[in-house]
Amino acid sequence: MQGFLGHLKEGNMSLFTDFYELTMCASYFDNKNFETATFDLFIRRLPENRSYFLFAGLEEALQYLQTIKFTEEQLSYLKKQGFKWDFLDYLRNFKFTGEVWAVPEGTIAFPNEPLIRITAPIIEAQLVETFLLNTVNLQTMIATKASRVVHAAKGKSVIEFGLRREQGIDAGMKVARSSYIAGCQGTSNVLAGQFFGIPVFGTMAHSFIMSYPKEIDAFRAFSKTFPNKSTLLIDTYDDISGAEKAVVVAKELEAKGFKLGGVRLDSGDLGADSKKVRKMLDDQGLTYVKIFASGDLDEFKIHELLTNGAQIDSFGVGTKMGTSADRPYLDVIYKLCETINSNGEFSPIMKLSKDKITLPGRKQVYRFKNKIGDYEKDVIALADEKIQGDPLLVKVMAKGKIIYKLPSLDEIRLSIAQNLSKLPGGYQALTEAPVYVVELSQNLQKLIKTLKRQITINEINGTSNPPS
Amino acid sequence: MQGFLGHLKEGNMSLFTDFYELTMCASYFDNKNFETATFDLFIRRLPENRSYFLFAGLEEALQYLQTIKFTEEQLSYLKKQGFKWDFLDYLRNFKFTGEVWAVPEGTIAFPNEPLIRITAPIIEAQLVETFLLNTVNLQTMIATKASRVVHAAKGKSVIEFGLRREQGIDAGMKVARSSYIAGCQGTSNVLAGQFFGIPVFGTMAHSFIMSYPKEIDAFRAFSKTFPNKSTLLIDTYDDISGAEKAVVVAKELEAKGFKLGGVRLDSGDLGADSKKVRKMLDDQGLTYVKIFASGDLDEFKIHELLTNGAQIDSFGVGTKMGTSADRPYLDVIYKLCETINSNGEFSPIMKLSKDKITLPGRKQVYRFKNKIGDYEKDVIALADEKIQGDPLLVKVMAKGKIIYKLPSLDEIRLSIAQNLSKLPGGYQALTEAPVYVVELSQNLQKLIKTLKRQITINEINGTSNPPS
Repeated sequence: MQGFLGHLKEGNMSLFTDFYELTMCASYFDNKNFETATFDLFIRRLPENRSYFLFAGLEEALQYLQTIKFTEEQLSYLKKQGFKWDFLDYLRNFKFTGEVWAVPEGTIAFPNEPLIRITAPIIEAQLVETFLLNTVNLQTMIATKASRVVHAAKGKSVIEFGLRREQGIDAGMKVARSSYIAGCQGTSNVLAGQFFGIPVFGTMAHSFIMSYPKEIDAFRAFSKTFPNKSTLLIDTYDDISGAEKAVVVAKELEAKGFKLGGVRLDSGDLGADSKKVRKMLDDQGLTYVKIFASGDLDEFKIHELLTNGAQIDSFGVGTKMGTSADRPYLDVIYKLCETINSNGEFSPIMKLSKDKITLPGRKQVYRFKNKIGDYEKDVIALADEKIQGDPLLVKVMAKGKIIYKLPSLDEIRLSIAQNLSKLPGGYQALTEAPVYVVELSQNLQKLIKTLKRQITINEINGTSNPPS
Repeated sequence: MQGFLGHLKEGNMSLFTDFYELTMCASYFDNKNFETATFDLFIRRLPENRSYFLFAGLEEALQYLQTIKFTEEQLSYLKKQGFKWDFLDYLRNFKFTGEVWAVPEGTIAFPNEPLIRITAPIIEAQLVETFLLNTVNLQTMIATKASRVVHAAKGKSVIEFGLRREQGIDAGMKVARSSYIAGCQGTSNVLAGQFFGIPVFGTMAHSFIMSYPKEIDAFRAFSKTFPNKSTLLIDTYDDISGAEKAVVVAKELEAKGFKLGGVRLDSGDLGADSKKVRKMLDDQGLTYVKIFASGDLDEFKIHELLTNGAQIDSFGVGTKMGTSADRPYLDVIYKLCETINSNGEFSPIMKLSKDKITLPGRKQVYRFKNKIGDYEKDVIALADEKIQGDPLLVKVMAKGKIIYKLPSLDEIRLSIAQNLSKLPGGYQALTEAPVYVVELSQNLQKLIKTLKRQITINEINGTSNPPS
């Protein structure tokens, strides 16, 4: 596998795609189909226990579009897969030249709303599908999940701790980024800290304790190294006797003019244990020592703990947030909604499988707010309709170049906090949240009706063309 | 995010770690703790509906261990995080110098069995924890899941189709690899095809159909480009009228001396539709045209389809396999089990939190087979015990160098097929499989008893050391 990771660098991600994107493109090319196509990237439905999406991943999506190209090595590989040289010659000079509209990262979004809208020659627009879906799926899923965890923590800090069980290296990086913009205070992932400038946190594992003959020796050794910022893990053997030893060490630190940072509980009944430990600390005048909890946490567990009065100051949330374990994917899709042929004629396009309908035409999403500025409803309309409300999609790329100032992570983080503050509280309920209203404009509804009739006549009840 | 992917190259993954690995190592260093430690990487328990694990990820784990190092840029970042220069000077020359034993990729494994056993100076052994867990978690989880899907398909081919919703770029690559070794025929991921030499598959999406005025025009265009290997997607508007048009195009191809490869169903009632479509094809003498099914498949759905006589030749399995959606992580952990101090004295180590016990000492796993060579039970023993049965852990690294011939993907794939053939069928049941017997040797049981008593006296019922 040597070399594997090195492969994953910008400008070389063109083969990170489903094979069918290439066979379709080869056939478009072979049939001289160079018409302009518009695709919408959107999410079909809300998973159980999700009432909104926090859109994330635009920055990488745009970097990818701006840099995609094919190397000679890649073309040789494709030759061996049976593609013809004329198509490969086309790929040799491939650049993405399209126009892209998107909602900014951190936008609160709902099913069927276009999140990214791509207009480009059909081969270009088709080829980029898989990568865009992959990056938006993961980042939007995690930002959404993390926002729920942060909401449940009611202002207590949440640190992303899932690196060891996140699904691979790239996931480790993107989960740190997505959960930070969604409101987490930081991550355990040092590479994400270095790369994104996200604050990093962490102190000790059970192995550190166990490597010393006695637990208290480990506490003393660690707090010697980090006298003012140690969080001692107290549950390796028994959390109450661990807490007793932490008190001893805290007093030793005080005698030297230092302060113990905190203690960490990682197993057992976090609620009951945190209360006992808080009392033990307070009884010794150690009110400044924080209690940190981790171990199998998610938004539901945190909600339950805080509802029952757990004395926890900070949560380390790992696997369940870092894999979005209760729903580890989104129904994110990328669908053709319009073509323009060489004569400049527009054709709105709709899919009409039994259980899967898509919205035709080039579209915009408008958000309506109430008098105090809270989100009230959205309307999905055709892009050329005049609709009140705030348009969500902005032009981010023209002729294949980013024309949009990419916000910093902290800017995205701030805008997410602001956006969530405008989403009425009910929609942020962890379970059984009401459904936010998303309407289709009159013109869009009319277009759907017309196309349904047309497809039914042309493709389903009509007669097939005779063999030629 | 520019530059992000380029970061992920060998020899530069040292910061892909939880921050606490570094704080612990800094404290080991500060306290001059350079004792030798042995850590076990293992999985705590079987998730629901899993009855074994297929171990995967060793190749990348070993490459990582052999190449890990720290760059000046990384050291500067760590300096800003508060680490002292003496520790950073140590990291500047850091190399992993340890000994590693592991079960080969593709080994069938069970809870608590050491999969990778690392013996090294404690700083080295500690620092590598997070990366090892991350890579083994994902690859073992997916190989296990994919083997269930392949089992359910009863010899029909399974193609991995989940790239768009796998959790990031690295997951996309590792899922392709892990599912291929577990028995899938190939992947849709072209980069995995190029990089690993895995066969790639795919033909067309709905957008291809919809980009043409009529469905049959799209079928004709595609089969013009790929006259002998087209699989036509027939459910864009209605699968039965789609199948009628596929028959027309198949006949047109026949007239030109070509053969349609197949048709694909991606929605609706795959079982009922496949039977109707099979009959339509057969009635026209198109018995050679295969039926390919995709759309929300997993081992349970495939089992149900085949049990009900679905006429499907090949399955494209995506999201649910590619994220292991019903259980998107494993309880994989990395625990200290032994230290050797500078006087050469061995201390077996055990964790004894309320609900989490670990097995002390350096261990080996022995597999017992019955007369016909089928797996019967395993025994986890201390490494120096004399036990019958086949030892599973082999020495793969000495002094930080790989001393083991890494098998090719196809060799691993073959050994997995052989291993699964020796696991009695009951253990491969999709639900309610019996529990495979894993015993602890007498000596290991004795050691656990002794340590339990010792820990209870020392840490739980004993008195704390007085403040110094």
